[in-house]
Amino acid sequence: MTLETLFNPSSIAIVGVSHDPKKVGYLVAKNLIDQGFAGEIFFINKNAGEDILGKKVYPSLEAIGKQVDLVVLAIPAAPAIPYLDEIHKNGCKNVVLFAAGFKEVGADGVENEQKLQQKIKEYDLNLLGPNCIGYINTKQKINTTFLKHVSPPGTIGFISQSGAIGSVMVDYFAAHKNLGFSYFISLGNKSIIDESAALEFLMNDEQTNVIGMYLEDVRSGTVFMELLRKISQKKPVVILKSGKTEEGSKAAVSHTGGLVGNDDVYDAAIKQSGAIRADSYTEFMTLLKLYSFGKVPSGDQILILSNAGGIGVLYADDVVENGLRLETISPEMQAQLLSSVSETKKISLHNPIDLLGDASAFEYKQAIETTLKEKDIGAISVLLTPQANTQIEETATVIIDTAKHFDKPIYPIFMGEKSVGRAEEMFEENRIASFDTYDGLSAALRKVLWRASVIGKSDTIQQSTTLSLMAHDAEIVALLGQSSYKPFLNLEDSLKVLTYVGVPVEPVTFISSAEQLSPAIAQNGYPLTMKIASDVITHKTEVGGVLTYLKTEEEVLKGFEGIVGTGKAKGVYLQKMVKGNELFIGAKRDPLFGVVVVMGLGGIFTELLKEVTYRIHPFSYEEFERMAGETKADRLMKGFRGSPPADVQKLYEVLQNVGSLMAKYSVIKEIDINPLFMLGSELRVVDCRIIINST
Amino acid sequence: MTLETLFNPSSIAIVGVSHDPKKVGYLVAKNLIDQGFAGEIFFINKNAGEDILGKKVYPSLEAIGKQVDLVVLAIPAAPAIPYLDEIHKNGCKNVVLFAAGFKEVGADGVENEQKLQQKIKEYDLNLLGPNCIGYINTKQKINTTFLKHVSPPGTIGFISQSGAIGSVMVDYFAAHKNLGFSYFISLGNKSIIDESAALEFLMNDEQTNVIGMYLEDVRSGTVFMELLRKISQKKPVVILKSGKTEEGSKAAVSHTGGLVGNDDVYDAAIKQSGAIRADSYTEFMTLLKLYSFGKVPSGDQILILSNAGGIGVLYADDVVENGLRLETISPEMQAQLLSSVSETKKISLHNPIDLLGDASAFEYKQAIETTLKEKDIGAISVLLTPQANTQIEETATVIIDTAKHFDKPIYPIFMGEKSVGRAEEMFEENRIASFDTYDGLSAALRKVLWRASVIGKSDTIQQSTTLSLMAHDAEIVALLGQSSYKPFLNLEDSLKVLTYVGVPVEPVTFISSAEQLSPAIAQNGYPLTMKIASDVITHKTEVGGVLTYLKTEEEVLKGFEGIVGTGKAKGVYLQKMVKGNELFIGAKRDPLFGVVVVMGLGGIFTELLKEVTYRIHPFSYEEFERMAGETKADRLMKGFRGSPPADVQKLYEVLQNVGSLMAKYSVIKEIDINPLFMLGSELRVVDCRIIINST
Repeated sequence: MTLETLFNPSSIAIVGVSHDPKKVGYLVAKNLIDQGFAGEIFFINKNAGEDILGKKVYPSLEAIGKQVDLVVLAIPAAPAIPYLDEIHKNGCKNVVLFAAGFKEVGADGVENEQKLQQKIKEYDLNLLGPNCIGYINTKQKINTTFLKHVSPPGTIGFISQSGAIGSVMVDYFAAHKNLGFSYFISLGNKSIIDESAALEFLMNDEQTNVIGMYLEDVRSGTVFMELLRKISQKKPVVILKSGKTEEGSKAAVSHTGGLVGNDDVYDAAIKQSGAIRADSYTEFMTLLKLYSFGKVPSGDQILILSNAGGIGVLYADDVVENGLRLETISPEMQAQLLSSVSETKKISLHNPIDLLGDASAFEYKQAIETTLKEKDIGAISVLLTPQANTQIEETATVIIDTAKHFDKPIYPIFMGEKSVGRAEEMFEENRIASFDTYDGLSAALRKVLWRASVIGKSDTIQQSTTLSLMAHDAEIVALLGQSSYKPFLNLEDSLKVLTYVGVPVEPVTFISSAEQLSPAIAQNGYPLTMKIASDVITHKTEVGGVLTYLKTEEEVLKGFEGIVGTGKAKGVYLQKMVKGNELFIGAKRDPLFGVVVVMGLGGIFTELLKEVTYRIHPFSYEEFERMAGETKADRLMKGFRGSPPADVQKLYEVLQNVGSLMAKYSVIKEIDINPLFMLGSELRVVDCRIIINST
Repeated sequence: MTLETLFNPSSIAIVGVSHDPKKVGYLVAKNLIDQGFAGEIFFINKNAGEDILGKKVYPSLEAIGKQVDLVVLAIPAAPAIPYLDEIHKNGCKNVVLFAAGFKEVGADGVENEQKLQQKIKEYDLNLLGPNCIGYINTKQKINTTFLKHVSPPGTIGFISQSGAIGSVMVDYFAAHKNLGFSYFISLGNKSIIDESAALEFLMNDEQTNVIGMYLEDVRSGTVFMELLRKISQKKPVVILKSGKTEEGSKAAVSHTGGLVGNDDVYDAAIKQSGAIRADSYTEFMTLLKLYSFGKVPSGDQILILSNAGGIGVLYADDVVENGLRLETISPEMQAQLLSSVSETKKISLHNPIDLLGDASAFEYKQAIETTLKEKDIGAISVLLTPQANTQIEETATVIIDTAKHFDKPIYPIFMGEKSVGRAEEMFEENRIASFDTYDGLSAALRKVLWRASVIGKSDTIQQSTTLSLMAHDAEIVALLGQSSYKPFLNLEDSLKVLTYVGVPVEPVTFISSAEQLSPAIAQNGYPLTMKIASDVITHKTEVGGVLTYLKTEEEVLKGFEGIVGTGKAKGVYLQKMVKGNELFIGAKRDPLFGVVVVMGLGGIFTELLKEVTYRIHPFSYEEFERMAGETKADRLMKGFRGSPPADVQKLYEVLQNVGSLMAKYSVIKEIDINPLFMLGSELRVVDCRIIINST
């Protein structure tokens, strides 16, 4: 489906155009005319006898007597549905439908939604909505929304599951210069055009150099990820997703009637695709502004020039806390800088460089030009506070002029409000991203730099797993099938399955009578671990079902009697005891994104510490490294307090194999491996549970 | 020292008044006249023949012929120092000194600083500065700074170690209504008037209902904490402190030449005193605004009314992530709310309550009035986005009117910019704290609620420790003295000292020959732990110096030979092996705040996880509970996965006793207890190191 004609029509018919200036049918008509759309516009209202806004009103689409490119339906749900027949007769393929009253209102609207879907399919329509506010195309001056303020033409393509967020952005842009939409697309219920379709359209749009999205859910996780990955290589995509918390999700479900997946999974999907997730509306706007104005830093070294020590120090804290670097400039540059300011001035040459309260525009200029030559610098932030004789606009001019001759970005941070307003305007007029406070910028730049580090990299996904899955298919199927009536496979079988897919395990011996102990001890060797064998107990440790450091036959027998003799269970597992640093590895199935693999700190504190990280299966080794770096497990893997580093390539393969296992056998619901021990370069799973779908 | 006449003078003499409109001597003179100070003003400049700003210029202070309340010195450091003689002769006690060139410039300025200090003491002067920008008293219309914009008279008392931050705030306030300083006090080098002196003045000022501070360091930790604690009971104190990171601290040191203490210690000191630390400039301003306008929430239940689903959901996430609550209103209120809007409107009654895009001012009014009756609500946030027919100013009026009749705060969040500017002004005119985005508010409210929860509570500090310290003073002194030539006490002695101050330990037996093993085994019982006894090894586990789960004489002997036989050490400690959840407890000495007690997750992962929390010794049991709640150790203490809850009262006593031990014996530099085991209701320290001051 191409959306070219939908978003770039030559002719538009508005159905339901109205005299009443409060009605959408009036507002949209007025916007289309006022904002200067150069194509043909047709007004349609079967009841309107006279002209509206000085324009003829047709009684029907048919009465126009020609095919139009786009029909905007500003009529309620009930008449809108049969109107698709008219549209089909006209030969038009593109529709914007504002009306609410579909699936978003719950049971009452489901029938409407179904009827709508049916006609969309039957007539092969590109329908935007329903329950949306339309779209804006600033280049062609098409505004099919009711938003009367005009967003200046810009380079931000914005796709939104909420019309209101678009309205907030338009209202904000309307008070600013050069910052605006290329397209704003309100998705509404996404009956046919969803986030992926809109993404694909913006991917190929040359006006758009950054894509912003507000999402509550996605239609298809895999399609979305694939597309996002492709686009992220071409242009940045910044996503503001709601539903981080359960309360948020609840509201989201009732809002658009969509299915909201587990937020951690979305987070992983977005990251893995090279897109950026914004943490708040403010950060979202900051990122869009940074990208929209073009230049972004190529390195994480930030140089701060300031006329205020205090704010410089606060900003320095913020830079460092966000993982950026603040290094002192080279002695040569220091000397240059010193010679460029008045001899008596005791400027501080540390980074932040304090040009002192009386810094003139000329001194700022000297300092910027000197420091920009420093090779290692990613960006310069110019902090200015309005003091006694601060040359605010002169300094702005200096920055604007200098910025023209350098590739590296300069970020002015002019603090205050009354005196600095004009300077802010000047920066926008010259497409320089400026800020009214230091806070927030570093966090956004950290994300910009993260993106630069992940895109354009080879992203090979290990395929070895498939082979071992093939080789042991029969055995795995047998084990899974055998246990399909139980909620989970027992420890012995779970470990066997892992072995079949190439995951190293420490095997167990099942013991149900005292006579079996001696041979099992001989087979495994001391020290031993004894674990209760039970189909119902989920937390073995909590019921005293795990004994460790067993070193004598006497201890083993005593342990066995304590568990089996007291009727707690019919048997125990004996296992050679393993020591090392513990990892947790798991996999679950997400309805939208498929298999999700989890890794983190293992042992009994997994739940307490929640040091875990997620990825959608499969993923590359590079992605695995980033994944590991997100938790403190990373330091354990690299060798911690005397323990040698683990074989991380091997660990990556374990994660891939566990993911492939789940991907191939849909009967598996979840896999919990806890712990996997890292013993120097060896890995060993000692406990595992494979949970089977009950349905 | 009373600062009443310094900050509320009836007569002011400006020394160094100037014709040059760029000089501070001109700007201050002009400000004092322009901003309407009603008292007497005298201009002094020994070189100026003619009038300045239409006012007579005296050649000297003496020439005025009368005593003045305040002398403002707008002259450089060199002439300023001897000028204090003139001021003394005049009988004036209050001085504002702008000049730089004192300790903040390093070695060159130290002599100046010393001379200045000497005269201040000799003449008993209240001197503000040097290296400051003066102060503003909005009520008396006194502006001794060069800041030409006027901050509207307000209720915020601001004490700042950076003049520039004051200038930023004045510039911001100048563009706003009703939001402003009662006093702005620029501290500069704090030669005599420091943060504590300024705090004490503002504590008793009736104009001031919230105190803001920008700090880089404090003069005296204990004086500061005591004062802060006292003031926090009367009015909120919000602190923006720089130097969170090492890089930040570096800049701060070079900025004011002050000593910057460890930031974690400052953090603890601020919290323990009931003051609020802001995380950023933006949060600082948000908190000042919330308090300045009076009403703050009494409970953590936030009700969101919105005309936009999407933003409502994002805001809901933010509320929950910041630990506030979002509960659905009662069925009665739901019914009332439903009956108050149009019958066909499908508003969402979950919290956030979505009044839909066409919400009228009347519907907002109905919704606010209905929901404010809900007993449990702490605050209502009214989200508004500018949509088709949104009644922006009408809704503002509704909020303003309704707010007058309710005690609970209503926070308007009108998003966008172009259409909502007038509404923002209306809110400020009516002293209602409004915001242009949802993000940031929840985090600030969380801090406001935290303050409400800690002030006004009985804060009894356990004193039992002192007694046991007295009882065993001789033994402790002997142990500490004996080991004073070593960097730390050995394990046996460290545990003994802890025992003397009432801390429960698992004792150890020192073994240096194989013959001693049998009796030691008998004394301690299996299973045993063996630990290397060494004066030099700091990480025993990393060198294989800790053996656990020893259960036979053979194992013990083998272990002993492995350590002592190989010459790694002269002996080992045997200790009955203890199991349980592990805590880390420590104490260190801070040059500013004294003894600092640390607690967190113990075991070998203390360093990896950094789950630790700090407090200045001593502190109350209530403070201990808050301290514990800051780390994941809290859940371990409350009983985790089958382990029973620990005796937290006893744990509190351990922390107090460890703190008292350090407080009493200054020869102790640090104490490290790791781990302390929680065994049900019992506590047991198994490893400890008492580090001795090497000087």
